[in-house]
Order: sequence, then C-alpha cells, then structure tokens
Amino acid sequence: MMPGPGGGAGPLVMLQALLGPEVVAAVRSDEVERYLVDHRRLYHGRALAIARPRSTEQVSKLLAFCNAQRIGVVPQGGNTSYCGGATPDASGTQLLLSLERMDRIRQLDADDCAMVAEAGCVLAKLQDAAREADRLLPLSLGSEGSCQLGGNLSTNAGGTNVLRYGMARDLVLGLEVVLADGRVLDTLSTLRKDNTGYDVKSLFLGAEGTLGVITAAALRLFPREASLATAFVAVPDIDAAVALLARLRASSGDRLSSFELIPRAALDLLSAHLPDARDPLAAPSPWYVLCEAASARADEDLTAMLAQALEEALAAGQVTDAAVARGARDRESLWSLRERIPEAQRREGLSLKHDVSLPVSHVARFVAEAEAWLRQAAPEGRLVAYGHLGDGNLHFNVSARSATEAEALAARTDAIRRHVHDLVRAHGGSFSAEHGIGALKVDELVRYAPPVELELMRAIKRTFDPQGIMNPGKVLRR
Amino acid sequence: MMPGPGGGAGPLVMLQALLGPEVVAAVRSDEVERYLVDHRRLYHGRALAIARPRSTEQVSKLLAFCNAQRIGVVPQGGNTSYCGGATPDASGTQLLLSLERMDRIRQLDADDCAMVAEAGCVLAKLQDAAREADRLLPLSLGSEGSCQLGGNLSTNAGGTNVLRYGMARDLVLGLEVVLADGRVLDTLSTLRKDNTGYDVKSLFLGAEGTLGVITAAALRLFPREASLATAFVAVPDIDAAVALLARLRASSGDRLSSFELIPRAALDLLSAHLPDARDPLAAPSPWYVLCEAASARADEDLTAMLAQALEEALAAGQVTDAAVARGARDRESLWSLRERIPEAQRREGLSLKHDVSLPVSHVARFVAEAEAWLRQAAPEGRLVAYGHLGDGNLHFNVSARSATEAEALAARTDAIRRHVHDLVRAHGGSFSAEHGIGALKVDELVRYAPPVELELMRAIKRTFDPQGIMNPGKVLRR
Repeated sequence: MMPGPGGGAGPLVMLQALLGPEVVAAVRSDEVERYLVDHRRLYHGRALAIARPRSTEQVSKLLAFCNAQRIGVVPQGGNTSYCGGATPDASGTQLLLSLERMDRIRQLDADDCAMVAEAGCVLAKLQDAAREADRLLPLSLGSEGSCQLGGNLSTNAGGTNVLRYGMARDLVLGLEVVLADGRVLDTLSTLRKDNTGYDVKSLFLGAEGTLGVITAAALRLFPREASLATAFVAVPDIDAAVALLARLRASSGDRLSSFELIPRAALDLLSAHLPDARDPLAAPSPWYVLCEAASARADEDLTAMLAQALEEALAAGQVTDAAVARGARDRESLWSLRERIPEAQRREGLSLKHDVSLPVSHVARFVAEAEAWLRQAAPEGRLVAYGHLGDGNLHFNVSARSATEAEALAARTDAIRRHVHDLVRAHGGSFSAEHGIGALKVDELVRYAPPVELELMRAIKRTFDPQGIMNPGKVLRR
Repeated sequence: MMPGPGGGAGPLVMLQALLGPEVVAAVRSDEVERYLVDHRRLYHGRALAIARPRSTEQVSKLLAFCNAQRIGVVPQGGNTSYCGGATPDASGTQLLLSLERMDRIRQLDADDCAMVAEAGCVLAKLQDAAREADRLLPLSLGSEGSCQLGGNLSTNAGGTNVLRYGMARDLVLGLEVVLADGRVLDTLSTLRKDNTGYDVKSLFLGAEGTLGVITAAALRLFPREASLATAFVAVPDIDAAVALLARLRASSGDRLSSFELIPRAALDLLSAHLPDARDPLAAPSPWYVLCEAASARADEDLTAMLAQALEEALAAGQVTDAAVARGARDRESLWSLRERIPEAQRREGLSLKHDVSLPVSHVARFVAEAEAWLRQAAPEGRLVAYGHLGDGNLHFNVSARSATEAEALAARTDAIRRHVHDLVRAHGGSFSAEHGIGALKVDELVRYAPPVELELMRAIKRTFDPQGIMNPGKVLRR
C-alpha cells in the first residue's frame, strides 16, 4: 500500500477513523456523475473520497487533517459551476467535500431583515423561507432549484436581480468560514454596519473555495415584493436599449429589478428547439428587452407605470413594439423565454460561451465590432449575445450555423476566445462577469488581471493556505 | 545631525530632492492645527514633513522612498476623523501625506451610472457633479462639506443614506491604490460585475490607510432623486420606532432612505444651546424619528404616501404625533435638528461617545439595560442616544448632567466604555459602526474582534506592509 500524502487507502482509512464512514466514504459508482462530472461535462474528475459533514466542527476536523497530510480539498455545493470550479482533478488524490448536509436555516429575523443559513442550503429553499417571513432574498438565478448558498457566495453569483440588489457579495452581512488549517472564522453577525478592521470576509466571496470553506452566512433580506410589472419589448438596436434602461430606471423610481437583452437569434433558437416557446410580438425585431419592475407596495400600479413609460419610449423611437404581462401566467411565459435560452443552445449543439461584462455605454460598440469580426473570421458561427444589460453583463455565445459546421467552429474556439476577450479588455470590460474562474479561466486571469493585483492574490493565497490544499489549481495556478 | 531611519533633516532633504519643495515641506506653524490636530482635539501630533502630491506617480515615489527608509506615512484627507485615524504620533518622525491636491474628477458617465474621482475630492463636490449629470451619489454625512473621498473610503463611511444605498464600500466599483512599496494597484473599472479572482480592493475599504493609500476610486451612481418626503415623528418607545421602520419600508415600496432615532434629551440640548432650534411638535415625547423617503420619479406624491402611512401608524399606536415637511424649508429645518445634535453636545461640554451598532430587533432592550445601568453606576451622566436606527447604528453618548458633574463623569470614562461595549457584544452588536478604529479604538478591537479574525488581519498587514510604514499604530497595534 502506498503511504504518504494523498496516496491510496491510507488517508481514507484515517479520515474514516476521524469522522466515521457515515461522513467519509469512497465515491460509489452511481455517484460519479453527480459529484465528479461538472454541469457542462467539461471536466471528469476522480476523488480520494467524498466527505459529507453535518457540522462546522466536522469540516474543521477534516481540514486540519488534510492540511497536516497535504491532501487537496475540493468543496462542492450544488455542482452547477460553469467553469469546473467544483470538480476534483483526475489524480484521485483530492478529497471531495460536499456541503449538502449542512442545510439548516439557523436564524431568520424579519425585523432585522436578516437570516443565517448554512452553506448547503439550496437557494430556492432560502428564497421560500424569506417569503414566508414576508421578506425577500433577492438572489435569483437559473439554477436556483439546485445550486447551494456556499457555491453562490464562493463564486459571488449574479443573476437577474443584480441591477437593483447587487451581487451575492452585496447581500452578505457575515460569514462562518473554516480555514485551511481547521481554524474557524466566525463573523456571523447580522449587523448592517460593523467597521471593525479589515473586511476579511470579502476575500472568501468569489474565492471559489481556494482560501477556506464557507460553512454559513448571514444574509440581508428586503421587504417582500408585493407588486410586479413585466414587459417584453422590441428595440431597434442596443443603443436604444441603453437609452430605454436609463428611461425606465428614472420613470420607475429606480424600481427596475431586471433588464435583460435578447437577440432575434435567441428567439429563433427557441422556436426551433422548444415548440411551445412563442414569440410574444407580431413582427420580428433584431433585439428585445425583457424588463421587470418590482415594489414592496401592494397597491402600486407598476404595470400602468411601465406601460406609460413604454408609450413614451415608443414615441421617442427607442421602442418599436411591446407586450406587457397581464397577470402571473403572462409573466412566467415571458420569463421562460429568457430562462430557456441556455437549454435551446444546448439542443442546438456547440456553443462557445463567453461571460463578459462591459461599461453599459460600450455594449453597443463592442457587439458591433465583435460581430463584424466574427463574420470574417468565423463564418460558421452565429452570434447569440444575451444577458443582463442592466449590469453590462453579456453571455456572448457563438453557436454553429449548422451541425455540419460545428467541427470547423470548434477548431476556432481558442482564436475566438482570444479575440473576444481582447476586445472586451479594449472596451474596459471583464472576461469574467458572474460565472467565476474555476479551472476553465485560470490562464485568462493570468493574461488579463493587472499584474500587481495578481501578485496580491498570490500573496493572499500563500498567507491563507500555505500548504496549498484548498481547491488546488482553481482561480490561481498551483 | 541624526542620520538613519526617520530621524532629523536627512529624510526631509532627500524627499525634497526627490519631489521638490513644492510637494514636500516642513509643516508651517500656521498649519499645525489644520494637519496635526484631529477634529475632536484628542490627538496632537508632530510630523517629519508634509507631502502634498499632485499625482499617483508622486505618491508612488514617496511610498517607495519611505518604505526603503522605513519612514512611517500617515495619509490624511479632510481631517474629520472621530478616532484620530489621520493624525501622526508625537515622535515627529512620520510623514504626513495629504491627498488634498489630488482633487480631479477623472470621468463621469451617466449611462454607466459611474464616476471616477481622486481621493482628495471633497465629498460635496462629488455629490454636486453627480447631480449636474442627473445622477445621485448617495453617500451623505455631516462633514460632507470638508471630508474627502479617500478618507470616506478608507473608513468605509456610513451616514444618513445607508438604509437604502449602503455604506461607502457598497458604492465602490474599483480603486487605484499605491501600496507600501510604491507599486500601483489599478482596478479602476466602472464595471458592475467583475468576478476575476479575489476581491482585493475590499481590503483597502475600511483599512484606514494601513495597507496602502487610496488615490482614486470608481463609484456607483444612481438615478437622481426627484421627489422627497420628510417627517418628524413622535413615538412612544423604541419598539414602536422599530415597528414603524418595517411599516414605512413596506408602504413606501422600500424607498425609505433615512430613519433616524432622536431622544427627548437631544431636543432639550438643542433648545438649551441653539435658541433657533424649534421643537416641531406641540407636546413632548420620549423618542422621535426623523424619516425620509425618496424617489427618482418627479411625479410621485411621496408626501401623501408618507402622511397616509403615518395616519395608519397613529391608529396602530406606533406613533403619537407627526409633522410632515411641506416644502424644502420645512425639510431643512427638520434635518438641521438632527444634524446639529453634535454641536449642541459640544456646547454642553463633556460627551462620552460610543459609536455602536446592534441588530435592529435588539436596540430597545439594549438601550433599556444600558440606561438602567447608567442610572446606578454613573448618576452624573445623561444618556443622549441617537442615530441611524434603520441600520441599527446608535451614537450612544453620555453627557454630564451639569458642568459641576463633568469631572466625576470623566473619571468614569473607561468604566462606562467597558460596560457599554460589553453589553453591545452581549446583544450581538459591534463597538465600531461607522467611525472606524483609528488610534482611539485599537485596544477595543483586540478585545472584541474574534481572535481568528484578528490573526488574519495581522497576517494581511504583514503581507501588504512588511516594513510597517503605513499609518503605524492605527487599527492594529505595532
């Protein structure tokens, strides 16, 4: 038997002796897909074992042991990463640490507008709990039915409510984190204001488990939204969409919570692959906006407000047509168009994905330049650029025009990524908006991060995880 | 002449050779008050010299030199710290680094809802510039006419709009920071979403210049507020005020931007010392709330909304009387009551100040317990607890009941601070809400910060500033 760091059965036996086989076990063959293959099926890992702790104390014991033995630890939530951030490498020497059993809501106080929840809570469960207390947890994203809080915070998730409520980071009041050596950092306060030295907790938000394991968080809640207005709007171009954004923010009294850009190409994909997806408007338009305003007042006629603002935008030439949702079913059907774009893309086949952000004022020029380049350099590709225009965040995806052209397009993956990301940088944008770095974008971070910032990140990594056991190879190269 | 680190004329001559006497000079006798004495006159420092750089490059040269020579550097903005955070020590060996000449607005883009400004900009100037572009920079505090952006960010300032818009940290999109060794960290992006590795910039927000010098920042802007409603409300007790907070957040559609608690004792101080301060209500009440709602819609009748919500609160017994502002003059006169409380306290004489925060649901119990203790243990003291109840932030101040009792009360300073801060901790609160640590609260931080967090802070300090030149002795002990 191979003794020593991370090799063979030795560490597994010792881990089981420490915490029992109920907490630490070999990955069964029927669990491989669930834990060792990522959501996009880009990564297929192996693992020394899987640990499913039930308490912070158990996580602490696990990490102290792994740190002493130099065993790499890969934390995992709902396994919905787009960047392979939660998949172990192929060596079989890393411990997969699933937080799924730590799924308690420890505290919820409506007066304080705060809740404390464990990392393994599925996001939708937290949204429901807040709603039952007449409050809103605004974090909302496509995978909310399966993604977990720990992963949301570790990737600083975005989603469809960022415009109004901010990223995951902005919702965090305090954290409980187990450090690489097993020490527990407890800053689980629900205080809105707490200026006591450096903002240490922020380092873990977006660190993707490379500096420690988030085990619980105190989250901000808001008054529950009691009225909603939703519209699907045809706009002539992106400039018009940007002008509409400013108009609606002002005319809604800054109650715009979502402002999603959708291209005609996405509607075409939807109608090709999802027959029940229906274009809400009569005539085709090159671009659309799905927008929503929300208010905590039940007696507020946001729909009338939105309809009037859209009339004015129509008169100003910023809008060519619009469908305003009348009731919850309308609303759901409009949102399902937006939310099923990734599914339609999956059915279409190859899709080269870029999760970029830009200053809102640059989005139109960036898309025009990138599209012109694509026509020349990758004629097999069709641009499907959609996303959270209110935050300047585009999912700049390139689909193959036909199944026969997929291979030729795939061969251009690296060249397209390089051109798109270089162009994003030239416009003052970022190659990574809301999906994180994971394993997929480690080289991009080295290329695009300011060198001084990268030096500081590496220094922080060495300070927090001197043995390099935390999610090795993710975010920063080993 | 004394050679070597930080001693005598040597370093001054060398600094002047490096950047010229226009940038680096001895502190003139008529400048001592302005630069070397803090706002509350608790600290009287000396300085090797004063540097007033005009550019990031000059700051970089200064720090590189000081790091090599191990000369302590004390950054200073508008010198409005309540905790001595910007005053050099008494040794005369530290360099005072005033950012006041770095006062340019580098960029302001209304579509992007962002501006980039240098650290030496006075806050009010930035508010004005945003307003001219039909946008809102929501950071607002008593000293906004003289405090500077760099100090606001370095202390993560709060103020009266935190309830709706967050702390200074929440408004920062990017930073330019000169590190202790002169390297320049440039993350001056105006992107709303940028998940590229660790959130390094957050460390500098609230670090009070101990990890580097913030030279510029990219800030979030919001739609300009076009309608306002303000009311001064009598409430029977703090529980009623907390219930009113939840009611007004919901009934205003979460457009409540300020919710300030004011005790009767504060109104008594105001009428004793500022004869033009007028109680807006007929009968006295033990507690008051000054609240304001704001909207970017010009055509919204917030005043009617607020008046109706207050009627309902009256019927529910949460409110006993209220004055709703009719027009800008009314509003100003109500706000001047709140804003002049510190002035009235200064005129009254000794005031033992505690800048604490609590979960909103604990404020009433905390105040009751603290007041009961004070009556027994410090009969010379009168409690004047006021502040941002919407954020759970109380300025828990104790004034002497009469001039003759000031000395006896002063003798209890340490005992009162200890009891108040211990009680705050027992209620899950913080001894430092929005004024920072500075020099004043270094020992409190050691006492109350979780030990693991303190260890991480010290490790970060060593990593970012290995020579210990950045604002020595502030936040963390040397």
